[in-house]
Amino acid sequence: MSDAGAPIQHSAVQAGAPWLRGDGPDSDVVISSRVRLARNLAGFAFLQRAKPVERQGVFAACRDHLTSVGLAKQVIWAEVHRLPQIDRTLLMERHLLSKEHSKGGAASGVDWPRGLCVSAPDERLSIMVNEEDHLRVQVLRSGLALTDAWQQIDAVDDLIEAGLEYAYSARFGYLTACPTNVGCALRMSVMLHLPGLRMTGELDRVRRATKELGLAVRGYYGENSDASGDFFQISNQVTLGKSEETIRRELEKQILPQVLEYERASRRLLLEKRRRATEDDIFRALGLLRSARLLAPEEAMAQLSLVRMGVLMGVVQGLTEQAVTQLFLLVQPSHLQRYLGKEMDQQRRREARADLVRERLGGI
Amino acid sequence: MSDAGAPIQHSAVQAGAPWLRGDGPDSDVVISSRVRLARNLAGFAFLQRAKPVERQGVFAACRDHLTSVGLAKQVIWAEVHRLPQIDRTLLMERHLLSKEHSKGGAASGVDWPRGLCVSAPDERLSIMVNEEDHLRVQVLRSGLALTDAWQQIDAVDDLIEAGLEYAYSARFGYLTACPTNVGCALRMSVMLHLPGLRMTGELDRVRRATKELGLAVRGYYGENSDASGDFFQISNQVTLGKSEETIRRELEKQILPQVLEYERASRRLLLEKRRRATEDDIFRALGLLRSARLLAPEEAMAQLSLVRMGVLMGVVQGLTEQAVTQLFLLVQPSHLQRYLGKEMDQQRRREARADLVRERLGGI
Repeated sequence: MSDAGAPIQHSAVQAGAPWLRGDGPDSDVVISSRVRLARNLAGFAFLQRAKPVERQGVFAACRDHLTSVGLAKQVIWAEVHRLPQIDRTLLMERHLLSKEHSKGGAASGVDWPRGLCVSAPDERLSIMVNEEDHLRVQVLRSGLALTDAWQQIDAVDDLIEAGLEYAYSARFGYLTACPTNVGCALRMSVMLHLPGLRMTGELDRVRRATKELGLAVRGYYGENSDASGDFFQISNQVTLGKSEETIRRELEKQILPQVLEYERASRRLLLEKRRRATEDDIFRALGLLRSARLLAPEEAMAQLSLVRMGVLMGVVQGLTEQAVTQLFLLVQPSHLQRYLGKEMDQQRRREARADLVRERLGGI
Repeated sequence: MSDAGAPIQHSAVQAGAPWLRGDGPDSDVVISSRVRLARNLAGFAFLQRAKPVERQGVFAACRDHLTSVGLAKQVIWAEVHRLPQIDRTLLMERHLLSKEHSKGGAASGVDWPRGLCVSAPDERLSIMVNEEDHLRVQVLRSGLALTDAWQQIDAVDDLIEAGLEYAYSARFGYLTACPTNVGCALRMSVMLHLPGLRMTGELDRVRRATKELGLAVRGYYGENSDASGDFFQISNQVTLGKSEETIRRELEKQILPQVLEYERASRRLLLEKRRRATEDDIFRALGLLRSARLLAPEEAMAQLSLVRMGVLMGVVQGLTEQAVTQLFLLVQPSHLQRYLGKEMDQQRRREARADLVRERLGGI
């Protein structure tokens, strides 16, 4: 068990998130797979309606059980409400905390005790306590690996349920704070990198088709976030009346193979029909990253996206996909500061970000 | 004497124009100085009103005199109306032919015999025959050298007048096709490189002040052209009732020293107060030029402008001012094609331009 002060160690910041390594199946298009369960304890009100004493009760019960039940070889427990803002943002950047709950404090309307349980050092498993629901269990995997992720989360769910009683209705299934999650309370999502579809102008068509199939399309940091760096999250919307198996099969066997093939075809088309213009875009992106002295995170993401595609296409030589993909995380504000070991204002961060990217990519 | 087919030899295209070498006085700001006289022959109508036989008469008289009088050590005579379009554009890019008269052909409304006399290999002296006036004499110098240029053109004017009778009125001075040139019929101009003033946002103020002093501010290719690459031509407007001496003194002693100091102060300010942002602009420009696979001439000029400033500031190492300045000419469409020895459509030129610039600047 680590202390509550630093849920993510400096070495982990340097190494990058394991799910961002880009070494999983189909990692040319699928960055990561994620499965998430929402659970609430029987006998306690949902958090928005709960009294302080109830919130404290849920927090203590979950903490005691999660830190003793042996969920993984090593588990780090962090008291999120006591973390400094920079650490909460770091967790959000690593997709271990939602954007909303990374804010915290009285101003956010969420000022009750919250906890986070993370398997270390792989960070594949994470459990948020007292966020929107009493428990949010998440498993992340590199590449397209929904089945693996589902198997792990199913086992973890059993371990948790062995010590805590879930709020469950025979008619509706698992009860959740937000009615859209009720039922199996399962969200499966994949983070896709779709620069090819954007560049061929087909992205909107794919987004529309995906939405018509009842799936949600979101940005890099989930709900209400932008599609930084051509990253898109696709996930199921409907949870009531659908089994885990149906959701997984629809996503992994029916929809994703089409999206993947569409993105790959776009990249082939760019190389075959518009090679010069595509190389121009890719090398301008690399040139910018290798020469800028000031760099905002959004611009870094957008340019890194093109360079990642260039490496995967074989257009850019001498750089690995991993070196580029790792930078997506390191250019984020809190990662940058933790990596460099100092807090900086926005201007200094832009300078430091540009310096770091030049150093990593061999700049001028 | 060279044949009429190729007024500018391949070696001259490769070497660049001498007046663009950037080795004259104050060449950090003043690219070149230019003095131009408009002259017409007595006894012939102005060109727009002249009959074909008169135009032919002017053409023949000027050709015979100019090619025999010994204006310079070596003089090339070109029959502009017989040149292919690419050569006329090449002459325009070298500032030896005006934009309007580089077009030629029936569509342009200028389809009579026109000639061009150029001193070789320095190209300092050039005389256009049957352009807007019967004779337009021009002397170009690198850097700020209006006095030198004036002395040369004055001597050449005397040589021409020794064999051809000018249309002259005791009351108005030299008579010209356009009344704005009447009087001394002299235009003195300097090509300024003002990236500092643009970046500090002071350029409009300087342009307004310059105009209020009765001077014209034009773009890279004179009238109706854009300020490509932060280049501006400043020249006198009024020629009636002003002596050559007055025009030169006002420009060289009173106005230009202020503009030069203003531009230099801007560059110092950028380095002292906004060093990071300025370095960011300069290195992004260099990064773009070193990595682009497609490059339009306007973009090349704009980015080269920033790199030139960076070299002069000492921010960019390992490149000479001359290497950068020469590219301003080589990226122009006709120069690019003559340099590479083949005609290309716009798409191919953009590819070849990017390749050439990368090769010259050490690209990725």
